[in-house]
Amino acid sequence: MNAQPPSVLTMGEPAGIGGELTLRAWAEHRQALSPFFTLDDPARLRRIAASCGWDIPIAVIDDPREANAQFAQALPVIPLAAFADATFGSPGPDTASAVLESIERAVQYTLSGQARALVTNPIQKETLYDAGFGFPGHTEYLAALVGGGMRPVMMLASPSLRVVPVTVHTPLRNALDELTTDAILAQGKLVIDALRRDFGIDRPRLAVAGLNPHAGENGKLGSEDKDVIAPAIAALNGPGVEVFGPVPPDALFTPRARQKYDAALCMYHDQALIPIKALDFDRAVNVTLGLPIVRTSPDHGTALDIAGKGIADPSSLVCALQMAADISDSRRAHKAA
Amino acid sequence: MNAQPPSVLTMGEPAGIGGELTLRAWAEHRQALSPFFTLDDPARLRRIAASCGWDIPIAVIDDPREANAQFAQALPVIPLAAFADATFGSPGPDTASAVLESIERAVQYTLSGQARALVTNPIQKETLYDAGFGFPGHTEYLAALVGGGMRPVMMLASPSLRVVPVTVHTPLRNALDELTTDAILAQGKLVIDALRRDFGIDRPRLAVAGLNPHAGENGKLGSEDKDVIAPAIAALNGPGVEVFGPVPPDALFTPRARQKYDAALCMYHDQALIPIKALDFDRAVNVTLGLPIVRTSPDHGTALDIAGKGIADPSSLVCALQMAADISDSRRAHKAA
Repeated sequence: MNAQPPSVLTMGEPAGIGGELTLRAWAEHRQALSPFFTLDDPARLRRIAASCGWDIPIAVIDDPREANAQFAQALPVIPLAAFADATFGSPGPDTASAVLESIERAVQYTLSGQARALVTNPIQKETLYDAGFGFPGHTEYLAALVGGGMRPVMMLASPSLRVVPVTVHTPLRNALDELTTDAILAQGKLVIDALRRDFGIDRPRLAVAGLNPHAGENGKLGSEDKDVIAPAIAALNGPGVEVFGPVPPDALFTPRARQKYDAALCMYHDQALIPIKALDFDRAVNVTLGLPIVRTSPDHGTALDIAGKGIADPSSLVCALQMAADISDSRRAHKAA
Repeated sequence: MNAQPPSVLTMGEPAGIGGELTLRAWAEHRQALSPFFTLDDPARLRRIAASCGWDIPIAVIDDPREANAQFAQALPVIPLAAFADATFGSPGPDTASAVLESIERAVQYTLSGQARALVTNPIQKETLYDAGFGFPGHTEYLAALVGGGMRPVMMLASPSLRVVPVTVHTPLRNALDELTTDAILAQGKLVIDALRRDFGIDRPRLAVAGLNPHAGENGKLGSEDKDVIAPAIAALNGPGVEVFGPVPPDALFTPRARQKYDAALCMYHDQALIPIKALDFDRAVNVTLGLPIVRTSPDHGTALDIAGKGIADPSSLVCALQMAADISDSRRAHKAA
């Protein structure tokens, strides 16, 4: 018997769209997806299904090993201990413990190998601060739970494109100052490793974006492209890899250009996120590189304005579940090779 | 008889793809396009057609008024006086006078009303400096020829999107410093006027992009969004117009977001050009706003590497010709109203 363990899906913010996405992902896509279970309140999920008019069977389990056998017939749920029944659209401190419990237990299951991969529903971090959450974001919290001092790196991946921003949640002015050859080099190495290990690409092709219009036009429109970015590209190149650039940013995401690389290393948040959200908004997945566990999440927020109505689109969550299983498979094959 | 005058198309750099694009645009799209003529060397165009194996009739004319009658049967060409026979891929000073002659005469025909609109093939500005060209780019040269001290503004327009960058060909670091409430306001007014006059939109909807990730998250990720951009939006709003933002840049170009506005005002070059080239590379048109004449051009360069082979895609030029005629119609209707 060589079946893989299931993936684990967190509850996310219960006042948001996480519950209905989980239900729809299972109900509409279970035949195509590898088995997963969620850590949530089964009564809450049943209420959501009933109020949306969905007939979705739920299997309450208490061990991840039960998930694979249940998955074809019912959505497997391991119940949370903490109170998780929020009012849609109104996140509050009452359910913060449950949000964190779901994440912490999911990380433990993944670290121990009882789950093959971690998929997280979106959270509302502002409402978690009172319950002891003291991290800039979801990903940093996961990195702390996983331990080992690894620096997590955000990749956005969709059918058209994979992008990784070197600088992320920082004012654009600060991003220009934080952009160093060393930072680009470190990020580039990590992305190349991930393309091999997580995406099964033997000879990764990495395109590196320029920073300035036309990648600086040889210094006339800014010096960073040749002084900061070009040296990192030279240092990243070597046997078994193709790294090129700095590519004029507006030329990097045309249909023809996208055929020439496996991932684009971008210099700032919006240089990476504008094209992928323009091209593939509903199918973009957030993949966390640099962690010992596999972690993906949908590339959207809690959508408080439409939560509970049953209209939220589960496409990105479905893509996140699929990609988590694919990356887990790729890592296993890579380890065996 | 209320037929409109023809549009005029410049030669562009003769070592580049302009000639073959002109020939293919006429040969493949004349039934759908309004009449146009080009200012070029007829012998050169015949040689290109012959070497590409195309049977394309050319009508040598000497007055724009002859173009409409010829257009259905042959490509109307007004011959240049200067020498225009370049070697493909090797632009040089020999043909600089012809490049400039084509532009200057085309502007005169448009200013005088003998042509309804000006469409320009791409030039290689570096090779024009010796022939007296002393402008940062094609558009600034046209503005000087037109006179009147107007400041030209670049819009990129495609079937999916219209974008206008507030700052253009400047290093990203300088763009941050050049971004003022006054600059955004001036550009926004011009775009709103153009949406009414050039695109026939009675009640224009203008989306204004933020500058920082997530549009600054209320100041946590940068102050420009609320201190510099928001006041311009407030000042632009009024009766008969809907101006909104600052929109988080990565949320501005999703398929749903694009339904909500007629144009997006962007804070820097690549914020505008990345999404339109990702979505519509072959059909994006450069429209110059702020001039008394109508001017469009294809959104690509001279493509010296493939010039003369007959493989260059004329889609963007065809869109530019179509849009020039449409804008000319819209201006006429607006004036009559």
